Amino acid sequence: MQDIPTFQDIQKAHKTIAPHIHRTPVMTSMNINQLAGAELFFKCENFQKVGAFKYRGATNAVLSLGAQDAGNGVATHSSGNHAAALALAARNRGIKCFVVMPRTAPKPKIDAVRHYGAEITFCEPTLKSREETLETIVSRTGATVVHPYDNFRVICGQGTAAKELLEEFPDLDSIFAPVGGGGLLSGTALAAKSMKPSIRVYGCEPANADDACRSFRTGQLLPSVNPKTIADGLLTSLSERTFTVIRAHVDDIFTVSEESILQAMLLVWQRMKIIIEPSSAVALAALLDNHLNFKGERSGIILSGGNVDLLNLPFRAG
Amino acid sequence: MQDIPTFQDIQKAHKTIAPHIHRTPVMTSMNINQLAGAELFFKCENFQKVGAFKYRGATNAVLSLGAQDAGNGVATHSSGNHAAALALAARNRGIKCFVVMPRTAPKPKIDAVRHYGAEITFCEPTLKSREETLETIVSRTGATVVHPYDNFRVICGQGTAAKELLEEFPDLDSIFAPVGGGGLLSGTALAAKSMKPSIRVYGCEPANADDACRSFRTGQLLPSVNPKTIADGLLTSLSERTFTVIRAHVDDIFTVSEESILQAMLLVWQRMKIIIEPSSAVALAALLDNHLNFKGERSGIILSGGNVDLLNLPFRAG
Repeated sequence: MQDIPTFQDIQKAHKTIAPHIHRTPVMTSMNINQLAGAELFFKCENFQKVGAFKYRGATNAVLSLGAQDAGNGVATHSSGNHAAALALAARNRGIKCFVVMPRTAPKPKIDAVRHYGAEITFCEPTLKSREETLETIVSRTGATVVHPYDNFRVICGQGTAAKELLEEFPDLDSIFAPVGGGGLLSGTALAAKSMKPSIRVYGCEPANADDACRSFRTGQLLPSVNPKTIADGLLTSLSERTFTVIRAHVDDIFTVSEESILQAMLLVWQRMKIIIEPSSAVALAALLDNHLNFKGERSGIILSGGNVDLLNLPFRAG
Repeated sequence: MQDIPTFQDIQKAHKTIAPHIHRTPVMTSMNINQLAGAELFFKCENFQKVGAFKYRGATNAVLSLGAQDAGNGVATHSSGNHAAALALAARNRGIKCFVVMPRTAPKPKIDAVRHYGAEITFCEPTLKSREETLETIVSRTGATVVHPYDNFRVICGQGTAAKELLEEFPDLDSIFAPVGGGGLLSGTALAAKSMKPSIRVYGCEPANADDACRSFRTGQLLPSVNPKTIADGLLTSLSERTFTVIRAHVDDIFTVSEESILQAMLLVWQRMKIIIEPSSAVALAALLDNHLNFKGERSGIILSGGNVDLLNLPFRAG
């Protein structure tokens, strides 16, 4: 069994990262409340540095390194928000960051990682090539690998978003968070259940990438099989560690259709005038799809990020 | 000469409307500060009710009516944010609102006005038809016409956005606001120069709708001629009243290209993760185009609104 953070670990992480992250605002929308028949509190991690909650975990991982390890830098293979987050966290500590990305990664993502000063190594777009390339870099540099979610310090960092939300609104009945690899959801559940044992915590994922839901229902860790969803941050599979936390502390996992995700995303853009990525819309979509079960509740929604390609949006006229 | 508000009038308006409007947040972006070489403070009226500063002026106009006048309702001809703002302000006071709109108005705008409970009368898409139709409605109902900007109470209400901004950040060197009919700009200038006489106030408009700039330069009120710009809130011409205030209290008027507007809008969406309409981007575009003249300044930018048709965005790939 791998190490599972306690609430004390999350508190310590929060002390570590607080001077470096944004304490993001919590927004509300009377309009969406009316639609939901509930009172919703949106924790806006789209306003976090690098535009995603990932900066919390990456910063905690980077700042938790001893001086000697830090001197060798950090490394990851990722094409998403975690790579940008790790790159910026490393730059802010003045250490190196090595990122392995598939040659096929979208240019805006490559540009973001490069913008934050990471050294990028391109590989073939297969998990095998990613892992082998990362291994080569690590043996050459001695860099510490920071996994996007299967990492103790990363989970502690991600849990600080829910901690802030509950510090500000202690009387929430439930919290909805998206689940991909489970770093955010397990951190959220650990923090929320420690702060308020009666709170319910729900994971939310695309029906087209429903490995967490299937794993949760069967009690067996099942991988993501050919996931295909606009919620591109939620394609990954749970790890043993995140699955252990989720089984122990999460109340249920909801799946939502692509159409529900798109409608929830459009709703937030239109009514709240903020930009969220499809992965963030999954949590609101789950609440709206199941709103009859949450009438009159006070629910927290973790808006995980706001990085979208504005020149290639999923909205269609008509 | 028509009545010009004093700062006392704006203070009174603020007391009147404060319980009914959002005190909108002021946001900053390190990233955009770096690009501008200045410290920018964005007053987020895109988060105002109905998604635009117009709700301030409309609310002040509606709440300033005596009981008897109020009983007859309010009326306007508009196809934009003012109509939606007046409709909601009227509904909140429990009075009628009559809106004249051209048959050709975009469906989302018609829907918004209807959503807020106004009675819509369609007319031909000409100023003549609009005015005649409005006159017919007024003579039938006795409703009070609330002009979108050539109105004492409306100007007072619009000035409260700059008042809030300066209350929160009293040491600004300058404020940039978009100018269409001049309600926002004249309210901004009246409030800002009263609170801090040394502050500079700049109007910002599309080069393709540069009537305010030409009027300012020549000292003669010149109409908008065939304006064509994505900043669809800035197509209107100044009135005698707003021109008088602008000549007296505004330091300069900048014009910007369509390309600059689009780039500034994209920048705010990408870096700040908030949705602003093209008219709002005009103020940032003016500052960025002229950034060499504002190095190291602390500048306020009024983001006037966030109502865009998300199914028909101006961004293009490539």
